[in-house]
Amino acid sequence: MTKQIAAIPGDGIGQEVLPAAIDVLEALDRDFEFVEGRAGNAVYEREGTPLPEETRELAREADATLFGAAGELAADIILPLRQDVESFANIRPARAYPGVDAVKPETDLVFVRENTQGVYAGFESDLTDDVATLTRLITEDASRKIAEYGFEYADEHDADRITVAHKANVMRKTDGLFVDTAAEVAEEMDVEYDEALIDALAMHLVLHPEDYDVIVTPNLAGDVLSDLAAGLVGGLGMLPSANVGDDNALFEPVHGSAPDIAGEGVANPSAMILSAAMMLEYFGYDEDGQRVRNAVETVLEDGPRTPDLGGDASTETFTDAVLEQL
Amino acid sequence: MTKQIAAIPGDGIGQEVLPAAIDVLEALDRDFEFVEGRAGNAVYEREGTPLPEETRELAREADATLFGAAGELAADIILPLRQDVESFANIRPARAYPGVDAVKPETDLVFVRENTQGVYAGFESDLTDDVATLTRLITEDASRKIAEYGFEYADEHDADRITVAHKANVMRKTDGLFVDTAAEVAEEMDVEYDEALIDALAMHLVLHPEDYDVIVTPNLAGDVLSDLAAGLVGGLGMLPSANVGDDNALFEPVHGSAPDIAGEGVANPSAMILSAAMMLEYFGYDEDGQRVRNAVETVLEDGPRTPDLGGDASTETFTDAVLEQL
Ligand SMILES: CC(C)[C@H](C(=O)O)[C@@H](O)C(=O)O
Ligand SMILES: CC(C)[C@H](C(=O)O)[C@@H](O)C(=O)O
Repeated sequence: MTKQIAAIPGDGIGQEVLPAAIDVLEALDRDFEFVEGRAGNAVYEREGTPLPEETRELAREADATLFGAAGELAADIILPLRQDVESFANIRPARAYPGVDAVKPETDLVFVRENTQGVYAGFESDLTDDVATLTRLITEDASRKIAEYGFEYADEHDADRITVAHKANVMRKTDGLFVDTAAEVAEEMDVEYDEALIDALAMHLVLHPEDYDVIVTPNLAGDVLSDLAAGLVGGLGMLPSANVGDDNALFEPVHGSAPDIAGEGVANPSAMILSAAMMLEYFGYDEDGQRVRNAVETVLEDGPRTPDLGGDASTETFTDAVLEQL
Repeated sequence: MTKQIAAIPGDGIGQEVLPAAIDVLEALDRDFEFVEGRAGNAVYEREGTPLPEETRELAREADATLFGAAGELAADIILPLRQDVESFANIRPARAYPGVDAVKPETDLVFVRENTQGVYAGFESDLTDDVATLTRLITEDASRKIAEYGFEYADEHDADRITVAHKANVMRKTDGLFVDTAAEVAEEMDVEYDEALIDALAMHLVLHPEDYDVIVTPNLAGDVLSDLAAGLVGGLGMLPSANVGDDNALFEPVHGSAPDIAGEGVANPSAMILSAAMMLEYFGYDEDGQRVRNAVETVLEDGPRTPDLGGDASTETFTDAVLEQL
């Protein structure tokens, strides 16, 4: 059955890496129909909104969405889209690849980030000119969903260790509810896990990322810790991600629009192609997902390299090399 | 004039490292009177509170406080003490020392963390069993105070660069007020600085800590980013800190009570002794502060090492070596 994929390139290098991922997907023996959606700075300038309702509708109706990258308006684009696909989990694998310079080559982690709550729930007010507040929200339902998802994910991927990240020594009621709910779910599912304070975890991840595997985290903590892990593996250029809901999902590289190199045709499409591999697995096309992943890995190890990895290959040359490996 | 110092060892290795710092301070030609204050797990067991009112009073009345370490009850001890001294700034230098294994030996950063607000303001409620909220508070006054302090600190320490960390793309009103206020203060003080999103900053710090110098941050972000930086320099064992108010201050190592080695007399007292050096500078005893810092550095470079740094020296041997260098 044809899968309809909303393809939203967005800003900057999003325009270059998304086509690369589509080329890879089209080389597989699967039936995808790609429908392009508009979003980004240029759209904002023309239409007064960076994310037209039509694009949101497209994401809501599609079987899945591929998103490229966003610039300064990222929060106005990606956060609503994550809501449109009703994603509650943001999955961010952070892995060092052979042949890619990494601060910590032994890093191989997956963040399972809660995708709807915390400070992102966004109830903010300017009480006066001088005083602003933000209401951070944690519910048992959302905490349960992310814990269940994270624990299942860990089980399916034979994770060595599950860590639940939090700051419940300070945010006693909100993160308290988050960790208590995780504890309940763990008991119901008969799962073993550790808890870690996000500050201590930030230090341990830098020192010994190899000690961790699947990390279930509240929303903002997941944002920061996954970027930290991107640093460990050599930068955001390598991190794919999935935003997964019950019936829909959106896949995007963790990197931004890279205005410094946008338009030059030299962006590294790895994170985007690996995000497409996550989409394949989301559809149950596990073998295809694995093929794409292996192809990217092989090219990263001995193929042509884009400038961010010390080479001078173009996005196209890199992508062609991936296609040859398929 | 005699300075009265509240000396609160707290839990675990706090009992070992604080006396080491006092030995160093007593070796200087200064007039300190140390008054011990009780806090910690054992106190909680005996008295039903980990931080008796008497200890809080002592900290409030003293010219400054030295704090050792706290265990699981840390939040119930250190947060009230930071309030008792009316500290608004938490200064955390993170520096790699020659001779100490570091993930990033070029790290030499100072976090200037806002010490009163954000999620630590702590207005939390369980709205129902299943829903909890926390009100994050940012005021212009507190943002102004930390920006002024951070910018002055940067100036006094000839900082190469000032970075204001935030997540104002999501926390638009609260962190928006924080960054807007920093911008106003920078204009008034004619200071140059950059802004950085905390997630991107987490990545850049891992990749290129040498690009940063003084980082002014909201409360929780400072907590997490400074621990990240501790990882970069080889662990929390090396990070001193100062909690500074208008008329009072508290100095503490960033590390915890290390129950695994507590009682063995092998704790590394560097962070505590360096915290005492920060106290010396707070009193305007800059030369003494520098002497202590130099002595610690020399010992770290070629002196006896405690087990955390790969040696087998005791806390006492290490401290004696520092005393010899003074
Ligand atoms: C652009 C921003 C709103 C977003 C977030 O905070 O989630 C980004 O940092 C990310 O992690 O994808
Ligand atoms: C113990 C805890 C409350 C504290 C904090 O969050 O400030 C600690 O992590 C620190 O950074 O000193």
